[in-house]
Amino acid sequence: MIAFCPACGTKTTLRTPEGDNRERAVCTACGRIHYENPRVVVGSVAWAGDRVLLCRRAIDPRLGFWTLPAGFLELGEHAEEGARREAMEEATATLRLRGLLAVYSLPHISQVQLFFLADLDEEAGIAAGPESLEVGLFTLDAVPWGDLAFPTVAWALQHAEKVRREAVLVPDVRTR
Amino acid sequence: MIAFCPACGTKTTLRTPEGDNRERAVCTACGRIHYENPRVVVGSVAWAGDRVLLCRRAIDPRLGFWTLPAGFLELGEHAEEGARREAMEEATATLRLRGLLAVYSLPHISQVQLFFLADLDEEAGIAAGPESLEVGLFTLDAVPWGDLAFPTVAWALQHAEKVRREAVLVPDVRTR
Repeated sequence: MIAFCPACGTKTTLRTPEGDNRERAVCTACGRIHYENPRVVVGSVAWAGDRVLLCRRAIDPRLGFWTLPAGFLELGEHAEEGARREAMEEATATLRLRGLLAVYSLPHISQVQLFFLADLDEEAGIAAGPESLEVGLFTLDAVPWGDLAFPTVAWALQHAEKVRREAVLVPDVRTR
Repeated sequence: MIAFCPACGTKTTLRTPEGDNRERAVCTACGRIHYENPRVVVGSVAWAGDRVLLCRRAIDPRLGFWTLPAGFLELGEHAEEGARREAMEEATATLRLRGLLAVYSLPHISQVQLFFLADLDEEAGIAAGPESLEVGLFTLDAVPWGDLAFPTVAWALQHAEKVRREAVLVPDVRTR
């Protein structure tokens, strides 16, 4: 909630601006309208042969549970650049991205998640970054399915299993 | 730029928080970190037979140029719901969405754009909403290609032409 104007520091009020159809935080002094919007998460399903890279979360939410390397896209960043950065930060992993694997819109948490299909550069190695308790490579049989952090991790893994050998990559789209 | 803390109204300072790797606006009183992130645009290429729906912009940027019905995804909104809302707002158009047509990451304007392939409910009609000077249906030959508002409008139209009769919809992905 934007209680104070980020531009001038005065209190805001919640009202529907002229020509708009929903309430926004509007500055009571300078009149600026402050919009809040969903955020974009970018991540990867990265393969080393038949094994996939997972990270055990060292941070909330879902501390201790397993996830794919993923995080918020930054200003000025390409989606794939963000996905590669997250893999480096969370698992010191170097990825080669093959294409778009999945698009999930998650209105209850106001996120759009983009996952890419990737190959891990095995020679560069992996190691837990500051946001990971540990990282590992798992065959799909060995994935800790009961200890995954989020439903989208399971969706992306299952779709990756289905399409990773296809010539044309048709993403898993859940946007309704 | 977040010059004042949206939570408490005190001045912020630009610094790199511990464990982070880029500068953020940090409140000098309460210490809250304020992130800024890219925004998601959702839109449609909507067909009525062999004609596609375009809107001539009544607002900046690119006032007077032709665009697809599209706009910023709102908090708590599904991507397809947002695309349908934008078509209603800009062209009073009722759409049936068929699937994901395109994903464009645009780092220079910090946007991720999602376009859907859609069918227009012709009986419900179209009319210019407050953000449109006029709306129209164009065969691809008649599209005002030289007067389109943004490059992504042309990309999405060209991809739609290519795939709209395909059984499996493979989106145009430009994320690197």
